Amino acid sequence: MSRDGAQREPARRVVLRGAVSGAVGAGAAIAVGTGGTAQAAPADGRLHVAILLYDGFTALDAVGPYEVLCRVPGVRVTMVGHEAGPIRTDTGELSLIAERAMRHVRHADVLVIPGGGQRGTTAMMEDTAVHEWIRRIHRRSVWTTSVCTGSLILGAAGLLRGLPATTFWGSRPYLAEVGATFTPGRFVEAGKIITAAGVSAGIDMGLHLAARLSDVKVAQAMQLAVEYDPDPPYDTGSPEKADAETEALALKLLADAAV
Amino acid sequence: MSRDGAQREPARRVVLRGAVSGAVGAGAAIAVGTGGTAQAAPADGRLHVAILLYDGFTALDAVGPYEVLCRVPGVRVTMVGHEAGPIRTDTGELSLIAERAMRHVRHADVLVIPGGGQRGTTAMMEDTAVHEWIRRIHRRSVWTTSVCTGSLILGAAGLLRGLPATTFWGSRPYLAEVGATFTPGRFVEAGKIITAAGVSAGIDMGLHLAARLSDVKVAQAMQLAVEYDPDPPYDTGSPEKADAETEALALKLLADAAV
Repeated sequence: MSRDGAQREPARRVVLRGAVSGAVGAGAAIAVGTGGTAQAAPADGRLHVAILLYDGFTALDAVGPYEVLCRVPGVRVTMVGHEAGPIRTDTGELSLIAERAMRHVRHADVLVIPGGGQRGTTAMMEDTAVHEWIRRIHRRSVWTTSVCTGSLILGAAGLLRGLPATTFWGSRPYLAEVGATFTPGRFVEAGKIITAAGVSAGIDMGLHLAARLSDVKVAQAMQLAVEYDPDPPYDTGSPEKADAETEALALKLLADAAV
Repeated sequence: MSRDGAQREPARRVVLRGAVSGAVGAGAAIAVGTGGTAQAAPADGRLHVAILLYDGFTALDAVGPYEVLCRVPGVRVTMVGHEAGPIRTDTGELSLIAERAMRHVRHADVLVIPGGGQRGTTAMMEDTAVHEWIRRIHRRSVWTTSVCTGSLILGAAGLLRGLPATTFWGSRPYLAEVGATFTPGRFVEAGKIITAAGVSAGIDMGLHLAARLSDVKVAQAMQLAVEYDPDPPYDTGSPEKADAETEALALKLLADAAV
């Protein structure tokens, strides 16, 4: 499959190396892990990742883990909502589709609870039906995880008592209220519970999970697949690196954009 | 607003510092830029960011820029599709809602074209109606941008001839076919066109755009707001850092998961 060939035949254009069957070369012979760690494979042979969407969730909290887990061999990612259908994010400017309703999801190998703004997070912290669902999934899960303020939702469901955990930096003081101990880190593993820091930290946690669900080679390949070679133009990504004015402005922008 | 207060009154629970009106303190007095660079503000006083969604796009390509731009003061982000409604990503496991149809969007200050898999990208490279829409928006845009293989779509619309640009690493050889010169970088600025590297590079580009649309303080605050202090567990995020086996496996995982 040469570039010249693609030029002559637009209908068979190739824009991605390895995108056409057989074109990868060595790729076809590569052995990839499927559930290399200790857990048993589910009945259908796939590892099911359920990501909970709820009114007011933060899009990147959900999409970061999705994007690095969805191509791990044997993994199936499903967005789950109170009901199936469109779920609005915390800014009101974007909706993602929940493919399945909570009541129809009785098992997941991996549960991911994204964070949200003040309104969405507190609603989930007070929703006992959601807590019951989270606890039911957690009983048989291989990993139960959160991103950002999602840890406060896990905590409200009673899963973080006495455990080290992290959350969005602006919510660290509130971890104690659910019985958890704030612990620094992009993500914190405590038994089968993993909590990630704010928003973009879900990408780092996703790569860690990819290794746990498959193997390190697959996780490294997924890092390359999403070209995660970060080079932010600034270095203000944590409160330890940003000054007080930046911190106050970040909190203001979050509050002002919330619906 | 004390933690004790939140505990006594669950209905007014606070889970995010500064989330309640007046609680930010200094925040209320902070001046924030709205369109600090040279462009004229649009008629309604907002800067409109249009992100094109299409069947087979890559979710993080769109959600990365969205998440860092949606809270920039005065900015309104809109997802645009051929038609309004759910648009399926490249894995088929997730759909985002396009809020508006292309034909109803005649102006955008910032256009973002996300990348997609082989099928989605090539379909957009051959869709002349999309090219006409892109050129129409580009004529009056302040910034015309892409993430990942979105640059090949900009290129197919004729916008990259003779320009330096970047794209997903696995698609670099194909930039020449649209008349662009591959140039290394998380994002490459050429006049008012900015092309970002693969998938997660849209976050870095988004922060750069946030500064251009507002000011550096806002961009730095948005980096903190999404806690973008990356610390991937591996260092294989670019082909320069990954070995040949990782590269071949990444291309295989991308091909295998494509629908």
